[in-house]
Amino acid sequence: MTTIGVGLIGTGYMGKCHALAWNGVKPVFGDGQRPRLVHLAEVSAELAQRRAEEFGFEKSTSDWRALIADPEVEVVSVTTPNAFHAEMAIAALEAGKHVWCEKPMAVGFGEAERMAAAARASGTVTALGYNYIQNPVIRQIRQLLDEGAIGAVNHVRFEMDEDFMADPEALFYWKSEASSGYGALDDFGVHPLSLMQFLFGGVTKVMAQLSMPYADRPSRDGARRTVETWDIASVLMELTNGASGVMALNRSAWGRKGRIAMQVFGSKGTIAYDQERMNEFQLYRADDPAGTQGFRTVLTGPVHPPYDRFIPAPGHGLGFNELKIIECHELLRAIRGEPAQIVGFEAGLEIERAVHAMAQSQREGRWVAV
Amino acid sequence: MTTIGVGLIGTGYMGKCHALAWNGVKPVFGDGQRPRLVHLAEVSAELAQRRAEEFGFEKSTSDWRALIADPEVEVVSVTTPNAFHAEMAIAALEAGKHVWCEKPMAVGFGEAERMAAAARASGTVTALGYNYIQNPVIRQIRQLLDEGAIGAVNHVRFEMDEDFMADPEALFYWKSEASSGYGALDDFGVHPLSLMQFLFGGVTKVMAQLSMPYADRPSRDGARRTVETWDIASVLMELTNGASGVMALNRSAWGRKGRIAMQVFGSKGTIAYDQERMNEFQLYRADDPAGTQGFRTVLTGPVHPPYDRFIPAPGHGLGFNELKIIECHELLRAIRGEPAQIVGFEAGLEIERAVHAMAQSQREGRWVAV
Amino acid sequence: MTTIGVGLIGTGYMGKCHALAWNGVKPVFGDGQRPRLVHLAEVSAELAQRRAEEFGFEKSTSDWRALIADPEVEVVSVTTPNAFHAEMAIAALEAGKHVWCEKPMAVGFGEAERMAAAARASGTVTALGYNYIQNPVIRQIRQLLDEGAIGAVNHVRFEMDEDFMADPEALFYWKSEASSGYGALDDFGVHPLSLMQFLFGGVTKVMAQLSMPYADRPSRDGARRTVETWDIASVLMELTNGASGVMALNRSAWGRKGRIAMQVFGSKGTIAYDQERMNEFQLYRADDPAGTQGFRTVLTGPVHPPYDRFIPAPGHGLGFNELKIIECHELLRAIRGEPAQIVGFEAGLEIERAVHAMAQSQREGRWVAV
Amino acid sequence: MTTIGVGLIGTGYMGKCHALAWNGVKPVFGDGQRPRLVHLAEVSAELAQRRAEEFGFEKSTSDWRALIADPEVEVVSVTTPNAFHAEMAIAALEAGKHVWCEKPMAVGFGEAERMAAAARASGTVTALGYNYIQNPVIRQIRQLLDEGAIGAVNHVRFEMDEDFMADPEALFYWKSEASSGYGALDDFGVHPLSLMQFLFGGVTKVMAQLSMPYADRPSRDGARRTVETWDIASVLMELTNGASGVMALNRSAWGRKGRIAMQVFGSKGTIAYDQERMNEFQLYRADDPAGTQGFRTVLTGPVHPPYDRFIPAPGHGLGFNELKIIECHELLRAIRGEPAQIVGFEAGLEIERAVHAMAQSQREGRWVAV
Repeated sequence: MTTIGVGLIGTGYMGKCHALAWNGVKPVFGDGQRPRLVHLAEVSAELAQRRAEEFGFEKSTSDWRALIADPEVEVVSVTTPNAFHAEMAIAALEAGKHVWCEKPMAVGFGEAERMAAAARASGTVTALGYNYIQNPVIRQIRQLLDEGAIGAVNHVRFEMDEDFMADPEALFYWKSEASSGYGALDDFGVHPLSLMQFLFGGVTKVMAQLSMPYADRPSRDGARRTVETWDIASVLMELTNGASGVMALNRSAWGRKGRIAMQVFGSKGTIAYDQERMNEFQLYRADDPAGTQGFRTVLTGPVHPPYDRFIPAPGHGLGFNELKIIECHELLRAIRGEPAQIVGFEAGLEIERAVHAMAQSQREGRWVAV
Repeated sequence: MTTIGVGLIGTGYMGKCHALAWNGVKPVFGDGQRPRLVHLAEVSAELAQRRAEEFGFEKSTSDWRALIADPEVEVVSVTTPNAFHAEMAIAALEAGKHVWCEKPMAVGFGEAERMAAAARASGTVTALGYNYIQNPVIRQIRQLLDEGAIGAVNHVRFEMDEDFMADPEALFYWKSEASSGYGALDDFGVHPLSLMQFLFGGVTKVMAQLSMPYADRPSRDGARRTVETWDIASVLMELTNGASGVMALNRSAWGRKGRIAMQVFGSKGTIAYDQERMNEFQLYRADDPAGTQGFRTVLTGPVHPPYDRFIPAPGHGLGFNELKIIECHELLRAIRGEPAQIVGFEAGLEIERAVHAMAQSQREGRWVAV
Repeated sequence: MTTIGVGLIGTGYMGKCHALAWNGVKPVFGDGQRPRLVHLAEVSAELAQRRAEEFGFEKSTSDWRALIADPEVEVVSVTTPNAFHAEMAIAALEAGKHVWCEKPMAVGFGEAERMAAAARASGTVTALGYNYIQNPVIRQIRQLLDEGAIGAVNHVRFEMDEDFMADPEALFYWKSEASSGYGALDDFGVHPLSLMQFLFGGVTKVMAQLSMPYADRPSRDGARRTVETWDIASVLMELTNGASGVMALNRSAWGRKGRIAMQVFGSKGTIAYDQERMNEFQLYRADDPAGTQGFRTVLTGPVHPPYDRFIPAPGHGLGFNELKIIECHELLRAIRGEPAQIVGFEAGLEIERAVHAMAQSQREGRWVAV
Repeated sequence: MTTIGVGLIGTGYMGKCHALAWNGVKPVFGDGQRPRLVHLAEVSAELAQRRAEEFGFEKSTSDWRALIADPEVEVVSVTTPNAFHAEMAIAALEAGKHVWCEKPMAVGFGEAERMAAAARASGTVTALGYNYIQNPVIRQIRQLLDEGAIGAVNHVRFEMDEDFMADPEALFYWKSEASSGYGALDDFGVHPLSLMQFLFGGVTKVMAQLSMPYADRPSRDGARRTVETWDIASVLMELTNGASGVMALNRSAWGRKGRIAMQVFGSKGTIAYDQERMNEFQLYRADDPAGTQGFRTVLTGPVHPPYDRFIPAPGHGLGFNELKIIECHELLRAIRGEPAQIVGFEAGLEIERAVHAMAQSQREGRWVAV
């Protein structure tokens, strides 16, 4: 049995998610390399050690460069805040490691370009954490589109909404600072863009409107601080396949918890999906018999691979974390040189390009070509 | 008991809907004038006579001017194709009649302006057929907004979708001719705009993208004819209350039958609604207890007037036609000089103004002030 | 044009519903007799006169026997409390009138038998107010069953739930008195039974459990009064088609407003329906392609007659009151001697028979043949 | 860090599910013992070795008794077919091991009693695989019930439906043989019963109807073989808390994939839940303000522990397999002597007792006390 040595930098939300994936991928899929959990890095040695014990890593460190230098580490998970992605990923690539980096690539487009360049130079495998494309539902939708089940796609709508910024009296924190990016546009927008890239190809032309629900928020000192990012973004788009599109993003949308809603309109039918009910999708076929035409609510099951690797019975449901296990498996396939469904740094750069074009369209009040 | 003499021009989709309303309004509401169904006009005397018998009108004619001239007719329902609205409504107003005209006002903005001018000159009551604002659900939402139940509204999304233009192989007909207007933008857009006007006030700034799912359609002679209207329209907006908004319209949306979906985001909650399930709406309140926060699906009932005038038990459901009965009752209230919830020609002109600004923004590729 | 003279006894919930149907049936359907609204009876002359004016009846009376004796009255709507049904319906039948009587037929089975006997003797048309079978959705389901779309039906589940008895602190009123019947069993059960009769035929064997959520309720005098009826009833059944079935009824079900939910399981598929969303149903076909099998949510439209007589566009929705218009139209067809879809007194008696067998099974703690 | 030695017997559906739980429990929860995956048993040495490699077990065997005898094994997962549960579990208990056994306990009640006796004698920890009670949704519902959020519960309805037996032309296999048990009654019924036990206590009185949708099924030899089990079961119940209840089970329900639907009616509200959408539940509170009363769809999140151990953001969704990780964690807590939420053999016996009472009520056509 072959193994692969794993290093993990960061153990927050996504760090733990990677750790669960590294632990679960072999038992779930059975095939391929067995991950050896070699080295874990956190900001303090004490935290690193505690997490290493929890997640099952052999060594721990507060020096992420030591982890990258560790010859037993072959692939590095980068799950730190966005501002650190470029430096860490580039260092890992330069050390000849494969890199699994969380999205978005970086805060600025220049950094993202340097990451893509480093990936090209290294020749190792890179993967970004666009886990929503790994959902068996999304694979099934891709297959339906490829088969022409809904004909030629002519219009799409994407929404992504959560409510963690919805309370106007929540304390000002870094997500409201300009240094964090544009706001919903990059924080959220990259997810729908990854789905569009996977399902339809790219975006050619964009026109965005960014808006702020709240001009200021309370700060710790009791005063109010001016908000510098846009929690709401709405974008008109043209896609490479000629379809028109709308993308609406809102991270101050009370009641929405993990909504990534998609409507795809074609000449022969319509597909709809919402990540809050990630184990189902809706399909309308124009060729169903009159009198019984309607949207079918399809529940995922073994017939939608790789659901079958998790559960042999349909309708029992995968969870968000399990998408990461699938992503991890795809990464391992790529490392083995097999065809794999991942968003590498090169493809990720296209997503970043679209986001920055959207921001430019907002600044200039006009359509911008991507 | 006072009565009011009614004339009806046109007996198609909306003509029949008006006829049902004129028959039903008194039994449902019990109060006010009893409509006397005096005169009905259709394109042929034979059809006019048949419909008069069915709908219970005393006289019939193939000359709509004779109907308007009939001294027994006090209020005229204009339900003919859009191209005839201006001429008929203005004639009726000049004859001193009240006018109940279907939407949109007219094909061109100039005609709409002349209709509004005629209404001002006449001093009689005018009402446009924006029946969706009459839904008890919408009244309840308006009340919740007025009470601040979801705080300050900062973002809205409207969708209106049907599928009667979705089949690319359906025969070319007048809705694909430029003479009919822009396409989805005016055909559909006026409905969401009437809801926005009723709930939030107006629109100040717009940016539209119109698109054609199909470049041509088959014509009767076996050839294909170039489509001249846009079946899809997507619009970015700024509202008078400062909120940003998105309006997405698609009359080639397979599977959507009467979808008018609305999401209203506020600082304390969210409201959602879809006309395809017109007897319910969704409310999320941020002040619900942690652990049980969620969108409530509220079914209409007697507590949402004037539902109580139709059915004393909740959850039994009103139908689309019954919205017209409510609209008719509001019109009669206005005629009696009572406060009423109708979209008169003056208010309707604002809706038309927004539509034409949207079309201009598409032509010029830039934001346009309304 | 032929007319038919109508008499209406009672103007409460169902009385008004009948009045709306008599006013609307001709404009909606266009065909057949025009109802002449001749005579209306209420408990007081004053109320009778007011309602006659509202509903458009020519004459009014506080003496329902005078209405029945009126030679201009050809058909009588009986919409009074259940205790009066038998006396009034039998008198009308003996006077040679057609009778449209609300459900259930009567409080006791003996009365119902006498009503059926009077109907046989009279030879006129009788119809009971089982309006839910008139829903175009139900007709579509019947057609699907007849076509074998879901194969042989082997199991059914029916639920009917509302919450008007759910508050334990609501004042005791007649629905908690034994004289009103058994409680949910007859108050609600007759509706699902009418649907079963229409869709599958009858019930052969039953086993019921009746239960009381609240042993007593407050009375006006400040004391508490013992409840004598069962607000909850659950029944195991065997149907004439061999299928097994469950019927669960609850009139103290908080949050349920007009739920009549049905699940029909067959050898090739499943059909589901809920009256709270009366304009849609769910269909699962086992022969849909693997990967896209799922319940289709079918919205009603013109393809589901007689929806087309109300609205030419799909998905716009009928209301509860409009079911009564369809029922009225069926009654008029029957009076004209045409095939019609109504539950006459003879068929209604079978429903009553099943209800009383259920009550017996509860008393005796064993299965009872119907 | 303490560890605990794990043995796994069986690697089918549930065996893999246990393996995933043993791999994931420490990374997810962080606390407690680290499972050492010591020994795995399968029917052949070759399969055992392959699975051991996949799942990360150190040793493998085709002799499950060797696994039980292994002194390094402290806890044994028994995931073999039901017929083997008793023998293996009792052997493990007699060897002083903790036992985690899949449900149902055994085919016959006598065997289940012997298992419970062995558990009492051993004094080690036993847990049955009733994983649905581990759903954070169910814990939240339990808490709401305990707090009186919906008042006194007076009626419950449970449904469990799947469609793996729905095709009448699927080959006859062991689930249709009488030796497998009663059919849906024990195959499915134990799950709702485990939920009832956790939420309300037990069942005191039952009355069941078992039915066969298909009298025979094709066998491999081309003939048809008589079916000996009942794929459909419907049960009337009385609960220890005095509530009445209905349990409806169908394993031939086309389109249902993992439905476990529950409706709980109380004096102040209603709770509803369906396992097919396992990350949400519905709550209706009678004390919500008039006009906005409705069922809230609550999505799970960190506020519903232990969801927070999996994902820090709400609405992202857990999967079926993750319920097993929670169950595993509870088992480890019990082994550490901490309070834990598991169904031990003693409690499991009560579930078996109810099932067999139901079968008796069917045979005897009368109510049976549990």
